Amino acid sequence: MRNLQGRLDLCSINTATLGHREPISLTIDRIARAGFGGIAPWRREIEGADVAQIARQIKALGLSVSGYCRSTALPAATAAEFNANIEANRAALRDAATLGAQCFVIVTGGLPAQSRDLLGARSQVVEGMAMLLDTARDCGVPLAIEPLHPMYAADRAVVNTLAQALDICRAVDAENTGYLGVAIDAYHCWWDPALAAAIETAGRENRILAFHVCDWLRDTRDMLLDRGMMGDGVIDLPSLRRSVESAGYDGHVEVEIFSAQDWWQRDPDQVLATCAERLQSHC
Amino acid sequence: MRNLQGRLDLCSINTATLGHREPISLTIDRIARAGFGGIAPWRREIEGADVAQIARQIKALGLSVSGYCRSTALPAATAAEFNANIEANRAALRDAATLGAQCFVIVTGGLPAQSRDLLGARSQVVEGMAMLLDTARDCGVPLAIEPLHPMYAADRAVVNTLAQALDICRAVDAENTGYLGVAIDAYHCWWDPALAAAIETAGRENRILAFHVCDWLRDTRDMLLDRGMMGDGVIDLPSLRRSVESAGYDGHVEVEIFSAQDWWQRDPDQVLATCAERLQSHC
Repeated sequence: MRNLQGRLDLCSINTATLGHREPISLTIDRIARAGFGGIAPWRREIEGADVAQIARQIKALGLSVSGYCRSTALPAATAAEFNANIEANRAALRDAATLGAQCFVIVTGGLPAQSRDLLGARSQVVEGMAMLLDTARDCGVPLAIEPLHPMYAADRAVVNTLAQALDICRAVDAENTGYLGVAIDAYHCWWDPALAAAIETAGRENRILAFHVCDWLRDTRDMLLDRGMMGDGVIDLPSLRRSVESAGYDGHVEVEIFSAQDWWQRDPDQVLATCAERLQSHC
Repeated sequence: MRNLQGRLDLCSINTATLGHREPISLTIDRIARAGFGGIAPWRREIEGADVAQIARQIKALGLSVSGYCRSTALPAATAAEFNANIEANRAALRDAATLGAQCFVIVTGGLPAQSRDLLGARSQVVEGMAMLLDTARDCGVPLAIEPLHPMYAADRAVVNTLAQALDICRAVDAENTGYLGVAIDAYHCWWDPALAAAIETAGRENRILAFHVCDWLRDTRDMLLDRGMMGDGVIDLPSLRRSVESAGYDGHVEVEIFSAQDWWQRDPDQVLATCAERLQSHC
């Protein structure tokens, strides 16, 4: 396992960690100034802005883009809506290319409104990924399927385990082009009794495109916006990182914390300083 | 799949569904009067009371006890605490026998305080189940491991998938004595991409001891106490019941709803009437 002491260049900040309270240009400056090697911006910060200019700023400051967040939900109640979702993702992939993103993060989407057809929604995800793979290759930006915690299966993502994400990768990209893989997020996966085996498989297949950290708070108060800072919760992050890196992952360790009542209330530079400290002491 | 129309005798009410607002004797009367064939009481209602008298009341009204809820958490920070947990479960198993319970529901417990050792906690569960198996046989009450939703992995149960629960059954009870199996709860398992295969396996091994229903609300507001009434959420309950019954389960369909802000605020007889209606129309 890599030693992160003094190696913030190996670490990245997902801009959600700062709560999207400031214009992206300020966020980029803060993250670079704090010494991190990477950034993972969100579409809400990019779309409608001058993407090329943002890309230049990121590059000029020596930051890598560890990922671009994130896909439009795929499952839809109608074919027209499904196709619109695909097109939205294609547009985002072009922005990801402009940004030089190392991957485009796929949060698959949950059940369409009024639907109880989980298998159908999962089939739509497979179909959608197949439709996006060519675009990804054309853009030079791999698709990273991020399995989300099962508590989001209804409303955010019908892909909920790493093994399931890998099954989709194999079904859609049997030839292993390098343009379809997974994002492993500690928050979503830490509980999974089959995780260690799935990480090994993902590594063997060269599918690990991103690794996200934060922590699971024992007394989680909100299902979406109460993630913990590394070290404040129950996840054995060093063991998890060891598994991921033993499987061959050598990309950034990306911090992604949604925390409406705690970290998003704090000074952004203080948040970044805490991330830096915890990455070196608790990951 | 069995037709539940007019067959409330095949259905059971877990007393948590009524919010534990009344003495157990009233709850038993209500459930019998509403026409259900079974009841699943909780230790909080039984311990310290006259268990034999409660058992007589249940029997006199023609109710089965589809399960007894539930185990003391097994994982512990010290050996003394672990052993105390085992003894508490042994005492509960004796009450389960007095009640004539068809199974004792095992909610394994989460991580001990301050612990990040998920594998260690899971090992303690295996060890504890092995210690309890003989008691279960002596009492004539099978142990039903209930995998809990992964969102409870930290604080309530380190067993989170049906496949994982079955692995424990096999490790502890290779000879398949009939005294170790699983409780399948729709709320905890519905999202699992490996669920169908695990149900088949569980059936083949004769391990399905209980089947619980409620619903997952798309806009869940509370991680513990916001379960939905069958039909109000996203779970395809008829498909799930078909899987479970195709695998050979022929026990009760048990309703277990934790709903502090909704169903626990309503008149108990109205709740039971709604359960009866939804069991026949949405399960």
